[in-house]
Amino acid sequence: MTIGMIGSGNVGGALGTRWAKVGHEVVFGTRDPKSKEVQQLVAAAGGKTRAATMADTARAGEVLLLATPWPATQQILAGLGNLNGKVLIDATNPLLPDLSGLTHGTTTSGSEQVAGWARGAKVVKAFNTVGANIMANTSFGAGRPVLFYCGDDAAAKQAVKPLIEALGFEAVDAGPLSQARLLEPFALLWISMALVHGLGREFAFQLLRR
Amino acid sequence: MTIGMIGSGNVGGALGTRWAKVGHEVVFGTRDPKSKEVQQLVAAAGGKTRAATMADTARAGEVLLLATPWPATQQILAGLGNLNGKVLIDATNPLLPDLSGLTHGTTTSGSEQVAGWARGAKVVKAFNTVGANIMANTSFGAGRPVLFYCGDDAAAKQAVKPLIEALGFEAVDAGPLSQARLLEPFALLWISMALVHGLGREFAFQLLRR
Repeated sequence: MTIGMIGSGNVGGALGTRWAKVGHEVVFGTRDPKSKEVQQLVAAAGGKTRAATMADTARAGEVLLLATPWPATQQILAGLGNLNGKVLIDATNPLLPDLSGLTHGTTTSGSEQVAGWARGAKVVKAFNTVGANIMANTSFGAGRPVLFYCGDDAAAKQAVKPLIEALGFEAVDAGPLSQARLLEPFALLWISMALVHGLGREFAFQLLRR
Repeated sequence: MTIGMIGSGNVGGALGTRWAKVGHEVVFGTRDPKSKEVQQLVAAAGGKTRAATMADTARAGEVLLLATPWPATQQILAGLGNLNGKVLIDATNPLLPDLSGLTHGTTTSGSEQVAGWARGAKVVKAFNTVGANIMANTSFGAGRPVLFYCGDDAAAKQAVKPLIEALGFEAVDAGPLSQARLLEPFALLWISMALVHGLGREFAFQLLRR
């Protein structure tokens, strides 16, 4: 299969190199196909790889991988012309420049609303990202599920952490309460996978480290 | 420590029972402390547990666990009075009744925007939830990182799945493209933990099943 990388930076470079190593024909799309950087990438990837303009890459690829910086994404796609029937794998994220949030989709959280309603309380978000069945029983053989918590009061978080650990979770401090903007969609991912998209309720997430 | 459960349904019941088993004093807050359901919960939890009204529970608890149905949350909190200095663990999620989304915070996704820009393409969201370093090398000893993908075209998703698996990920179909509303915040969770909140870049998520 010919895979066209729309963007050959960190993500496009890593994925294209690995797909080339397993035998796919990879085209690294770039503003300047003659640049030293992309030529080094092609040489390192080996196999059937080459560099091309973004538009040539889009024409050549049976599957396209979109890995552009978000601010450039609209303009680059506009320059590709018609993509009729192409499979476009979107690996972008609409990140704000300082990584403090997303430009699309997330604006606030239930927990920030709760903090407005719960007069005087020190709110810590926790225990929202897995079902009650996992909270009742955190055993997965050798695996240990992760549970994130977040809040704006350090002492309150220190009080909550052992309550998480007492149940067998790995407790991970995810930062300020505004991180609930991420933990609530993470919860809905669990819920939707458990109830709608086929994983069932008896799953959880573990952190892998190296 | 005395822990007050603001809400004693599935989540409050599971957490209160387990904290009671490890020696905490647990108060199960409920609309009707004399109901058969909550009395059974108290009997099953054992240890130093009792049932109480929501307001009494809030007064008694050194730490409060908020596990209310979202539509009832504002009213229940309003009935608790001043929570000055209390640690309130928020386990709620602002779910729409049909679980199709959140009432607060998430409205759309970059990927749905990309689908509007990429004329004719079949967009599949993938490879956005971990850093390029993980895509370059998915090895974590015996662990296998998960990679979610989503999209509205079944054939396009079938084409993308083996490209994910070829890199050593467990590929999990998360449903339609609108699920990017969850996968993009999931990505920002990875990014924020990797770059800001202390996990570093060499981590990923694995699914645990049982």
